[in-house]
Formats: sequence, C-alpha cells, structure tokens
Amino acid sequence: MEPDFNVQPDGRFGAGSPDRLSSERHRNIGRLLITCPDRPGIVAAVSRFLFENGANIVESQQYSTDPFGGTFFLRVEFYLEDLADHIGEMEREFGALADSFDMRWGFTLAERMKRVAILASKAEHALQELLWRVHSGELNADIRMVISNHPDLERVVAPWHIPYHHVPVSRETKEAAEVEQLKLLADEVDLVVLARYMQILSPRFVDEFPNRVINIHHSFLPAFVGANPYHQAAERGVKLVGATAHYVSAELDAGPIIEQDIVRVDHRHSVADLRRLGRDVERSVLARAVGWHLDDRVIVHQNKTIVFA
Amino acid sequence: MEPDFNVQPDGRFGAGSPDRLSSERHRNIGRLLITCPDRPGIVAAVSRFLFENGANIVESQQYSTDPFGGTFFLRVEFYLEDLADHIGEMEREFGALADSFDMRWGFTLAERMKRVAILASKAEHALQELLWRVHSGELNADIRMVISNHPDLERVVAPWHIPYHHVPVSRETKEAAEVEQLKLLADEVDLVVLARYMQILSPRFVDEFPNRVINIHHSFLPAFVGANPYHQAAERGVKLVGATAHYVSAELDAGPIIEQDIVRVDHRHSVADLRRLGRDVERSVLARAVGWHLDDRVIVHQNKTIVFA
Amino acid sequence: MEPDFNVQPDGRFGAGSPDRLSSERHRNIGRLLITCPDRPGIVAAVSRFLFENGANIVESQQYSTDPFGGTFFLRVEFYLEDLADHIGEMEREFGALADSFDMRWGFTLAERMKRVAILASKAEHALQELLWRVHSGELNADIRMVISNHPDLERVVAPWHIPYHHVPVSRETKEAAEVEQLKLLADEVDLVVLARYMQILSPRFVDEFPNRVINIHHSFLPAFVGANPYHQAAERGVKLVGATAHYVSAELDAGPIIEQDIVRVDHRHSVADLRRLGRDVERSVLARAVGWHLDDRVIVHQNKTIVFA
Amino acid sequence: MEPDFNVQPDGRFGAGSPDRLSSERHRNIGRLLITCPDRPGIVAAVSRFLFENGANIVESQQYSTDPFGGTFFLRVEFYLEDLADHIGEMEREFGALADSFDMRWGFTLAERMKRVAILASKAEHALQELLWRVHSGELNADIRMVISNHPDLERVVAPWHIPYHHVPVSRETKEAAEVEQLKLLADEVDLVVLARYMQILSPRFVDEFPNRVINIHHSFLPAFVGANPYHQAAERGVKLVGATAHYVSAELDAGPIIEQDIVRVDHRHSVADLRRLGRDVERSVLARAVGWHLDDRVIVHQNKTIVFA
Repeated sequence: MEPDFNVQPDGRFGAGSPDRLSSERHRNIGRLLITCPDRPGIVAAVSRFLFENGANIVESQQYSTDPFGGTFFLRVEFYLEDLADHIGEMEREFGALADSFDMRWGFTLAERMKRVAILASKAEHALQELLWRVHSGELNADIRMVISNHPDLERVVAPWHIPYHHVPVSRETKEAAEVEQLKLLADEVDLVVLARYMQILSPRFVDEFPNRVINIHHSFLPAFVGANPYHQAAERGVKLVGATAHYVSAELDAGPIIEQDIVRVDHRHSVADLRRLGRDVERSVLARAVGWHLDDRVIVHQNKTIVFA
Repeated sequence: MEPDFNVQPDGRFGAGSPDRLSSERHRNIGRLLITCPDRPGIVAAVSRFLFENGANIVESQQYSTDPFGGTFFLRVEFYLEDLADHIGEMEREFGALADSFDMRWGFTLAERMKRVAILASKAEHALQELLWRVHSGELNADIRMVISNHPDLERVVAPWHIPYHHVPVSRETKEAAEVEQLKLLADEVDLVVLARYMQILSPRFVDEFPNRVINIHHSFLPAFVGANPYHQAAERGVKLVGATAHYVSAELDAGPIIEQDIVRVDHRHSVADLRRLGRDVERSVLARAVGWHLDDRVIVHQNKTIVFA
Repeated sequence: MEPDFNVQPDGRFGAGSPDRLSSERHRNIGRLLITCPDRPGIVAAVSRFLFENGANIVESQQYSTDPFGGTFFLRVEFYLEDLADHIGEMEREFGALADSFDMRWGFTLAERMKRVAILASKAEHALQELLWRVHSGELNADIRMVISNHPDLERVVAPWHIPYHHVPVSRETKEAAEVEQLKLLADEVDLVVLARYMQILSPRFVDEFPNRVINIHHSFLPAFVGANPYHQAAERGVKLVGATAHYVSAELDAGPIIEQDIVRVDHRHSVADLRRLGRDVERSVLARAVGWHLDDRVIVHQNKTIVFA
Repeated sequence: MEPDFNVQPDGRFGAGSPDRLSSERHRNIGRLLITCPDRPGIVAAVSRFLFENGANIVESQQYSTDPFGGTFFLRVEFYLEDLADHIGEMEREFGALADSFDMRWGFTLAERMKRVAILASKAEHALQELLWRVHSGELNADIRMVISNHPDLERVVAPWHIPYHHVPVSRETKEAAEVEQLKLLADEVDLVVLARYMQILSPRFVDEFPNRVINIHHSFLPAFVGANPYHQAAERGVKLVGATAHYVSAELDAGPIIEQDIVRVDHRHSVADLRRLGRDVERSVLARAVGWHLDDRVIVHQNKTIVFA
C-alpha cells in the first residue's frame, strides 16, 4: 500500500482555506512532508535545498522503517520570510530533487487553516470538546459545518455561528442521506471528523476522503470492534476502558490508528459508569488526533500511522 | 455460574501451609469472605458475629451487583488474639448464620502462607519478579517449586533453594508431561502461576485448579488473543501495549481478568521493542494479581473478578 | 485537629437546596457519614440501626487510621422508601447511638443538590468544564452564581442562565470586594469552587467556608506553590506537569489535597505548551474533586482527606 | 552554563570500554552529538558530511531552544561499515566543520560499552533491577563494580561476578571513605549510578564526575527534597507518589532531571505502603534514565536535560 500524508489528488497537500487565516504564530511557517525509499543522502539534499532557499528549520523529525532498503519519512517545519510569496516557486524547484529520490511530498502553509466538517449524532461531549479547542486556539481549524442525523445538537452549535445541517438517516434513506452529505462537503472541507457519529459510512463516502475521515471509537481497538463497546467491556470484565482515534477505511473500525488512551475501571463500574468515564478519554484522544492531523503530523503507511508528535 | 473465591472442595478456603508461617505482621489476622443473595441485614449480622467473638475489624469491603436482588460480596479482615486457637470454633458457629443467608463463605488465616508453584519456560523476567517480591516480603507466598519445560531457568532458581523440575513438553509427550506436572503439584500447592509459560494447559489440568491458575498474557485482552500478541500489536499499529493477568479457564485467554495495564508505544517501536517495553508491564501486572490472590482479595463471579484491592 | 466532613455549624451536613431536586436516580438515596474513635462494635451498631430502620445499604466504605485506638471513618449510602419523610426521625434516633460512640456524624439526602458558587477570572476552561458536567448530569450541583473579577467570562455563562457577578478586585478594593462577594454568597451556597480564580482569598473569607472552598492549583503540590507554577516547572525542567485540587485553608496552597494528576512533558515544551497541556489535567482533576465533594465522599482529617471514591 | 553531553575533558565523549564489546546489534553503529548556536545550514552541513563519509543515518533528532538565535542540539545515529577503523579520521575531518559552526561535539561507538559503578546502601531493588537489565541486554553497560557503605548487598552481587567493595561511611570517616571510593573509581568508570545510596556526596566527588552521576530520588522533585520523602508525602497527604532520576550536582536534589514517574496512592497507604509502591517506580525510572545516558540520548543544558528518547 502507498504511504499517504493527506495529499490532494494533484499530489499536493490540502491547500487549506485561503480566506481565513489563523493566528500570527502561524505566519510564514511552512511544512514539508516527504516519503521515499530510504537511501543515503536524503536529509543532506533536503536540508541543503531549504538552506539555499533561506528557510530556517524550526522542527524536524524523521523515521525509517528500515535504514537499509526501507521507507523513509520526513517532516520539516521551517520559517521563511514572506513564505506565501515564495511557496509556488519552491514547489516547482523542489520537483526535480523529489524526482531523483522518487519522493512523494508536499508543502503546506500553517497559516492556511484546514477546513473541517464535524459529523455528530446525539452525544455532545466530543463535539463540544472540538469546538472549545478551536475557540481556544489549540486546534488550528476552520470548522465549516456540523452535520447531524438528529436535530438535538443544534443548540450546542448555535452560539458558535457554525452552519448546522440536519440530515436524517434511516435504513431506507441512508443512500440519499449520504448523497446529501457529500454534496454539502464537496469542495468545502479538507477533513471530516466523526465526533461520536453513530452511522457507518459507506465505502463510497470513505473513498471521497481517503485518510481524511477521523473517527473516535470508544474502545481500545482492536478490542470491542463494532456496536456497544462499553457493553462488551463490562461483559468481559476488563480493568481498563479505552478510546481509539483512527482514520476510517473500508473495513469497520480497522483503519489506521492515530491515538489511543485508557482509563482505569473496576468491578463497581456499570455500563453507565464506563460510558461516563470513557467520555473523558474519548474527548482527549480525539482532540489530540485531530490536532496532529491539522498540523500535518500524521502520515499513513501500510494501514498504520507515523505520528511526528 | 457460581461465585468462587478460591474455596477448597470442602467449602473452605485453602488452608495454606501450616508448617511455614509468614511474618509477624500477619499474626492473628483473619479474613472472612462471603457471597450470598443481597438482602438487608447481612452486614449487621456478620459484624455482630465478629464483635461478639471479640474480633476487631481492620479492613472491610463490600460490593453488590444490585442492592435489590443482586449478589452481595464481602471481605472482612480482622484481628483476634490467639486466632489460630479460636478459628475452628468460629467456623462451626458461623455455619448457622451462613445458612440463614444462603452464604458461600470461608475464613483464612493470614499467617498461613499459600503454597505456590510457578510454571515458566525460557523467559525469566516474570519468574524473577515473583521470586524477588516473595523475598522482599511483598508477596506472602511459600514458593514450593518451579516447573519448566526447559532447563534454562534452573540457574535463576538455584540461589533461592527452591526445587526446580524440568518437565519437557512436546506434541507427543504433552499428555504424559501434564500427568507428571499434576503429580508434582498434587496436595502440594494452593496456586499455580504461569510466569510466561508457553504451553497451553489442557482442560483436565485447569479443572484440577479452578480459579487457582493465574496466567500473564502479554496483551490488553481481549485484544490479541493467542500466540505472538506483540507481533499482532505491531501489525495493527496500536499506540498502547498491554498485559493482562487472568485466571485460566477452559477457553484460551478468556478466563476472568484480575488486572491489566498498558505502556505507551509508537511507530518507532519494533516487535523487539514492544517485547522489551511489555516485559515491565507484565512483571508489575502479574505481581499485583498474584498479591491480591494471596491476600484473598479476588472473588470470581460470572467469569469476572471482584477485586477488593 | 478535628475531623471534618463538611458539616454545618449545627453538626449536620449541608442541607442542600430544598427547592431544586436532582434526577430520579438520587431519589430516596441517603448517606450517613461518621467519624469516631475506633473500637469494636461500631459497624455492628450502625448496620443494625440502618437495618431496623428498613434501609437497604447500596454502598459502604470504611477506614481506620489505626484499628487499635485510631480514628474510624464510615460512609454508608442507603436506599429507604420515602426517605425525606423519615430522615428527621432517623436523625433524632441516631443521636443516642452516636453519643455512645462519641461520633461526629451526619445524614444527607442525595436528591438535595448542594448549592455552588464558582469564582473565576479570565481563563474559561475550568469554568466551562464544570458547567458542562453539571449540564450532563455528572455533577449533582445547583450552580447558583458565577463571580469573577473580570467581565470576560459573562458570555460563557450567559447561555446557561446563571447569574454572573462582576466584582472587580484591585489591591485597594480587595477588602471591599470580599465583603461584596461574601454578601452574595451568604446563605446561598454550600460550596465555593475556585475555577482558576487568580486572587488569594483572605483568612476571613476562608473561615466562612471551612473545607468548603475547593481550589485547582496548576502544579503537583507541594511542588511549585504560589504564582506561575508552569514557569517554575519549565525553569526546573520537570518531566511531568501536574494539577492539584485542594480545600483552601489559611496557608497558601497548603490545604487538604483532594485529587492530583499529571501529564508527561519534555524539553520541547514551552511554558505556553505546559499551560495548554496542563489545562486538560486541571479540568479533569477539578471535576473529580468537586464531584466527590458533592457526593459526600470526602472527609478532612488532620489536613488530609479520606476520599471514599 | 555550558551545554554538556557527557564529554571527557579532552572534548570527546567517553571512549567506553575498549576491551569488552557489546552485542552484535551495536556493531558499526556510531553516534554524533552536537550543540552549537542555532543558525541556518547546520543540518545541511552535518548530513552532507555524513553522506560523503558513507554513513547511513538510522536515527536523527534535533531541538532548538529558539530557532532564531537559540541553542541547537543534534543527535544522529548512523551505520558505517568498519566504523572503528574510520572513526579516528572522521573525528579529525569533522573538526574543521565543527569550528565553523562553533560546535561542541563528539562521536561515540555503540559497541564500546560505558563502564559503570553502582553505589548502593542496604535497599536492593534498584541494584537488582540494574543488574537484571544489564544481564538481559537492555542496558548496554559494563558494570565494573558495586560500592556500598554496608556489607548486606554482597550476596546480591556475588552471582554476577562483579567486584563488591564495602566502604563503610560514618560522620568521622566520610572524607576518607570518599577518597577510597574515588580511588576505586579513578580511570575505571564513565558513569556512577546511585541506586538508593543513602549518603550525600561531597562537591569534590561530584566535581570528578560532572553530569556522570545519576541518582534516583524517591519523590516527584522538587517536592520533598532531602531525607525521608515518603514520610513527607504521607504527612502532606498527596494522592500521587513519584520518583525522579537526575544528575547529581553540588546542590542537594537540584541537579538536572532526566526522568520522572508517579504511582497513584490514597489515604489508606501507610509510609510502608508508599515505600513498597514507590519501589516499582524507582526501579523503572532509574532504569530508563540510565539506559538513555548509556545510549548517549541525554544532553545537559542550563541545569535541564534534553532527552532524545
């Protein structure tokens, strides 16, 4: 399987929202993500390129599945005066270097916020958490819309002046509902976040957003795949309850895992208790995963993630 | 399924080793474990019984699956002067009270150490950890023997002056080997600990020690049941690696979970790294589970554990 | 120092808000908290009293600083049909028993929500968290008011229809401001929560609410007492950053600790990063501490807490 | 204060033990540590140097206190065929590059194990843990000796065939004892580990091993500096107990922190319980810190550590 770091069909990363710039600290910050067959000289060539373009590296991380013939991954964050004016030319120039190393690559500008749609159902905690963190500046996102199969959460979203689309889903209307959802999303968003959205997306939907749909599953995957993981956990008598943020793929709850965490439980906890305790873990795990995606820190490779956290 | 708290076939708890007393702090400390249908008045009756027998409660924990018609569990630790002289009569007296509440119950004396056999293969970390903790006084156990299907660990055990039985196991000899193991264990041990013992026990073996065989499985069960859990974990790309201590039952890795814990990992960790990092969690999880069992803190109910930690 | 479990001056626990009942699951649930010199027979007497009054124990926890002459603590949660009608008589009857054991004690009714004031400054995360958890039913509280020395958070509170009092505080006006705060609080609240309130309360204020003011301090106390704990933490180069919820006492940041937790950090984290990461721990630690207080699970003894969580 | 990454007085890293090679996986693995004023072009120059010398980078991490005028830190791990034959020439060549960037730097060879002395008193858990991890191959160290102010631990060390020096210390003999210790250590060890050694080292001793003495303190520093931290913790009523591994400096318990961790405790835990629970954290924290030091992953800068873990 190909490595993938959220590149657009044209081989470039999501361009982000040109009309809504994020805070000053993101100004002139560029990111370069690369993956290619590992061989000597990659870092030397890339760092020379950045140096000669006047870029100042502020953060750099790399990983190789095997330094002898494996796959190499690199994320560089750099500062360049008037970056937006230069990025076009840099991309053109970098092409030749990239070809010689057989790279997949992309530049992003931190100041161009990714456009996000949140899908939710009735539970509000994950949605609330994301909205708060965008508001507080922790998540560098432009929340374009919230879509729900229920009307309940409109009051949660209203104070934030974000469009709320109620798209009911039943067994009969599911296909039509997805068509409507995709129409709302088309050309409008770079990332879809399932914030405890209780419907399974069809492969057609998932194909539209490869490695761009993040779900929070309320178990420590691969334990308790599917419905009612807290019931399953209580039934099995586990001593820890977990949450898993992952990219959605065609197979249910089997996509690349971005982040996981757990909370300790014991025999006294009912399913309702697990649900309550689990909420906190779901919130923080989802927020971390979304934040890393927004900051271009996640690369998918062979159904696993490299997270340059 | 019946609740079970390590009672002997005669309805009493393991009598422990009469000829090897543990440290002074266990002198005159008794424990009473009870389970019965929940209804008002249980605690009143039991605490009155203990009070009238001159016992001073030093610790007490209780749990009910449902205060209205569920199952009630109680563990009381008490001090009674010259306990060993009185325990026989107390047991006889308590019978009548127990019958009126339809109790399963048992007294144990803390000073009578449980007799333990450790089964291991080639990995030494779990075995070492148990031996150290017995030596340091943390685990109140009389380690009667170590049985291994390999000769390697004899040098680990030798300094402790504990009998080491090398019982090789192959596909052909498995049945005979178990007969030999059971012969070594018969009437000699109250608890069997599988300290990374890499053979699956037959139902016949397990039946001999119901809820008396503790295994450490190197994954966060029910994820990664069976062989090579660290390989499975690396393959799935999980962000946490776990260990699970559980009682062994007829179904593989499906017995009652006593304790679990995890350690954080990421994309950089190879299977060898997971194995190395996992060792630490295996050691501490197994040690906690064994310690709770030895102190009569674990009750099995419907394939789950109540742990009065 | 005397043990204290949030009793009112008349020796009874906070009566709670009679005019605003909490959810159905709290109906007919009573709690009895006791502390007294430890001696045999306490549990027998108390459980008999509850049994004879027709109460069904749903949860019970006890602790003794020393079973031989120490101090004994008991928390019993029970169900009694039409509890509100019987509680008065039960209290009268219990008095005689309590006297014979030299008990400090109190009954509370779970359905009578405690009345809470939240004090905040400019940071909103802790305030938001509390409001959201009250809204979701996790915290059984009647939030009577929010008081702030700044106007900023009014927009956070407005959607919840909770009175917001802006009471500016400067060095010159501090004394007058506290008079105004105390006037707002008088007879109106059972608990004051400092949700990142950045002013130090005077001893006079604290004396009005002994063990009834909960503060969240953004460090792992006793490390980094006082101002700017995240600066202190960054300066010292710690590898973990913590938060501590504690009752406020006369001495700064030295009151009884209710709950603590930490988050892992490293050399890459700036003070701003610590502040951001710490927010999550502050929120969860404060929420747990407040929840335990509201459910009468915290007893103060010799500047430490017994938490029957 | 100067950055420091365990360089020898001649500006080179500890040469390690030439006569005792570690396992095959360390063969031909070199490490380059660099610190210098941050400015554009460092990575380009260093990676080019390594590339031109035929080295294959297997791991690389960098950090800057401030990309605009701060201090830059780099750790590169590389593979080079017949490294031992080439390292001398590489070091000579690198000098010119290093000078032009005003670098402090050093190469180490992974196969040259660092020589370690362990100082202990009576408690054996930390010592045991280190010996076991060396034995299992987790710690790449050549344990040259154990020095203790008591004879008790000789039996622990004996099976490992490591010299055990009993150097008693009393108030009167302390100075002479240190002279004797230093004589034993001189030219023999690259690292001193205090594995619960209960004597305070004099500044003279510490000066001999700048950032080469690792201590495990049994608290979450800076809380509970000095003697009896578990008593202090119990007295203060904390809800977490910690351990801190740090380099020893002239000021007591104030040296650069390498690693910390905690374990949850509550009101039921006596000082003896804290000591028992804390042992596990002490063992794992010390082992991690020592392992990172041995693998040249720790750089000291302004009394803090950069850990490239």
